[in-house]
Amino acid sequence: MPTTASADAVGDVPAPFTADDYRARMDRAAASAADAGLAGVVVAPGPDLVYLTGYQPTAITERLTVLVIAPGQDPVLVVPTLEAPDAEKAVGAPALTLRDWTDGKDPYAVTAPLLDRGSPRTKSGGGRFGVSDNAWAMHLLGLQQALPGTSYVSLTEALPMLRAVKDAHELDRIAAAGAAADRAYGEILKVRFAGRRETEVAADLARLLLDFGHSQVDFTVVGSGPNGANPHHEAGERVIERGDMVVLDFGGLKHGYGSDTTRTVHVGEPTDEERRVHDLVREAQQAGFEAVRSGIACQDVDRAARKVITDAGYGEYFIHRTGHGIGVTTHEPPYMIEGEERPVVPGMCFSVEPGVYLPGRFGVRIEDIVTMTEDGTGRRFNATPHEMAIVE
Amino acid sequence: MPTTASADAVGDVPAPFTADDYRARMDRAAASAADAGLAGVVVAPGPDLVYLTGYQPTAITERLTVLVIAPGQDPVLVVPTLEAPDAEKAVGAPALTLRDWTDGKDPYAVTAPLLDRGSPRTKSGGGRFGVSDNAWAMHLLGLQQALPGTSYVSLTEALPMLRAVKDAHELDRIAAAGAAADRAYGEILKVRFAGRRETEVAADLARLLLDFGHSQVDFTVVGSGPNGANPHHEAGERVIERGDMVVLDFGGLKHGYGSDTTRTVHVGEPTDEERRVHDLVREAQQAGFEAVRSGIACQDVDRAARKVITDAGYGEYFIHRTGHGIGVTTHEPPYMIEGEERPVVPGMCFSVEPGVYLPGRFGVRIEDIVTMTEDGTGRRFNATPHEMAIVE
Repeated sequence: MPTTASADAVGDVPAPFTADDYRARMDRAAASAADAGLAGVVVAPGPDLVYLTGYQPTAITERLTVLVIAPGQDPVLVVPTLEAPDAEKAVGAPALTLRDWTDGKDPYAVTAPLLDRGSPRTKSGGGRFGVSDNAWAMHLLGLQQALPGTSYVSLTEALPMLRAVKDAHELDRIAAAGAAADRAYGEILKVRFAGRRETEVAADLARLLLDFGHSQVDFTVVGSGPNGANPHHEAGERVIERGDMVVLDFGGLKHGYGSDTTRTVHVGEPTDEERRVHDLVREAQQAGFEAVRSGIACQDVDRAARKVITDAGYGEYFIHRTGHGIGVTTHEPPYMIEGEERPVVPGMCFSVEPGVYLPGRFGVRIEDIVTMTEDGTGRRFNATPHEMAIVE
Repeated sequence: MPTTASADAVGDVPAPFTADDYRARMDRAAASAADAGLAGVVVAPGPDLVYLTGYQPTAITERLTVLVIAPGQDPVLVVPTLEAPDAEKAVGAPALTLRDWTDGKDPYAVTAPLLDRGSPRTKSGGGRFGVSDNAWAMHLLGLQQALPGTSYVSLTEALPMLRAVKDAHELDRIAAAGAAADRAYGEILKVRFAGRRETEVAADLARLLLDFGHSQVDFTVVGSGPNGANPHHEAGERVIERGDMVVLDFGGLKHGYGSDTTRTVHVGEPTDEERRVHDLVREAQQAGFEAVRSGIACQDVDRAARKVITDAGYGEYFIHRTGHGIGVTTHEPPYMIEGEERPVVPGMCFSVEPGVYLPGRFGVRIEDIVTMTEDGTGRRFNATPHEMAIVE
C-alpha cells in the first residue's frame, strides 16, 4: 500500500463522516440499484467500499471481503475473521451486519445466500447485480460458480453516477485537496529544473503534496521536452535542459479526497511556437470550463475544449479525452468524452484537461478540477495561473 | 501508486532481467496452460504482468490493458494508445506484439479475436482461459460479453504455481530484500517505544526499509499490547507502554522482490506467561522451518508448526494459516495451509509465521521467509535472532 505521511500536516481536519452518512449512502445505492432493475450491488474493497462504509482493509488480497447491498435488506459485509476486528472499527460498521469466514472455509458459500435472496430474478433464475469495477476476477468467478443463475454488470456500466455527485462535506474536501496541490505548484516553481532528472523534480512534488497535507501521492508526472509529448509518461531519468517545455501533472488524496492538477512550465524563454501552443491549450481549457452550464452533457465539455484545438489545426495532437471524475479516487466516472451523453449536474467534480502533444518534441496540458455549482455554473478548485511559468 | 524512494539506496543492483528471460517465462506460461487443458492465459496489470513482461502501467485503471498468452501463438499485449509508448519500453516488449486501442473504441472487441483463436474449445464453443486473480471484474465481464462461449478460471486455481518457483536471480533478490528487512529490524530495536504511538514506530520502520533500499513499503504492522492480539492490526494511535508486548511485521519490495518478516519484542521485562508464549511460538516457527524437506506438501509446514502450539494447549489462539508465498508480491501462492496438498519444491519461497493471539491481552508472531534449496532442505532469508528482544 502507499506510504503515508502523517495526516493533517497542514490545514483543518474536516468533520468526520458519521455512521448515518454511510447509512444514507448505502440506502441510496440500494434505491439506485432498484431503479436500474438490479437485485443489488456487490461491493469490493477499494473506493466503492470506502465511499459506502468508510472501511478500507489493510490490504486487498485473495481473501474475500465483500459488501452486499440489496433493496429491502440490511447491508451485509463479509470479511475474513482475521480482519473482522478492523472492520468492526469502521465508521460505517453500525449501519451494516458483519459476517466473517475463517481461513480454510469457502467464502463464496458464505456470500451466496446473500445474493440468492434478491429480486428481480432474471431468466436464468438468479438476480442481476452491479459489481465494483475493481472487484477481483477470482472473486467474481467464485460467485458465478457458487450461484450460476446470477449475472453481473460493472458499476461503471450500471450505476456510473453512484459516487459522482458530491455533498457539501465532500466538496469541502476536494477544495482542500485542490488548494494543497496549488500550494505544491507554487513551491515547485522555486526549485531548480535545468540539470536535474525528471525523477528528482517528481520526488520534490511528492514531498510537497505530503507537506501540504496529502496522505497519499497518486502520481507526479514530470514530462520534459519530448517526454511531455507522451501524456502518460510519468517521470524518468531524462535530465531536464534549458529550453525544455515541462508538463507537471500531480495529485493524490487529502482527507480521503482527490487532487489532480496540471501546469506546463518552461525552462528559460520559450520559442514562438511553444508559446503559441501553450496559448492554444489555455484557450481550450477555458472553453471547456465555460461549457460547464446547466443542461449540458459530459461530452459537451470535451467538444468545447476540442473545438478550439481542432479549429487551430492541432486536432490530431489532442489524443485523449478532456476529463474524468474525481472523488475518493483521483480518476473515476463521469468521463468528459465524446459519446458520454449523461448530464453534468450540480455536485459533480471532474477534470478539464485538454492537451497538445507533438511527437518527439514537446507537450502541453493544463488541468483544473471543476465542479458544477447549484446555480448551474462551473467552479474551479485550482486557482494557480494558467500562464506559462518560466522556471530555472 | 505507492510513493517510491530512490532505488538502490543500499546494496548492489542485481543484473536486470532480459527480454529472453521474459520470453522464457511467457513460453513456460503457455506450456503450463496447455498442460492444464486451458486455451490460454489472460494476464492483467499487476504482479502477473510484471512477472511475465516487466511491464507495469503507471496506474491500473478502467482502461483495459491485457496480455493474452496462448500455446502456439505469439503473446499479444493490448494497451490503451496513450500508454503504448510506456509499454514499448518494457524490457519484455521485444518478446511480444503490442496492439493498441484509442479512447472511445471498444477494447473488448480488440481483444476478443485473440481469445477466439484458442483451442481446446469447451462445450460452449469457446476456449477456457486462466485469468489473473486481480483482473478487474469490469474487464472480465467485458470479455465474457464479447465472447459468451469462453470461460475463465482464476490463475490461483488453474496455475497457482506459475510464479511459485524462483530461479537463481529471483532468489538473489529475495535474499537481498530479506537482508534489508533484517537491517531495518536491527535499527528499530534502538528507537524508543514507550510513550510513542504505534504509528510513529511504524513510520520509523517504513523509513528504515526505504533507507535500506526498498522501493516500496507494503506494510508496517506495530501491534502493541492488546492490539497485537489482532493479527491484521496495522498500526494505530495507541501509545505504547512499558510492559507491552509489541508485534513488528513489515515488508515491501526491493529490486522488485518482496521482504516480509515478523519479530515480537517487549518493552521492559516480560512476565513469565509472556515469555512462555513467546518461547512456544519460537518453537513452533522452528518446527515449521524444519518441516521443509524434500517430499513434503505445503500443508505439512502448517501441521508441523500448528502441532507445537496445539500440543501446548494454545491451538485455538493460532487463528491463521502458517504461511504464504512471496516473490514479485509480498503475498501470493503457495499457501502453507491445511488442505494444500501440492508439494514444496526447490525454489519456492514462502513465509513461516505461526502466532498466538490472546484476545484483549497480547499477541506473539515470529516470521521468516524460507526457501527449499536444491538439496531439499530449508534455507531462511531472515537471520535476526528469534529471542525476544527487550526494547525501551
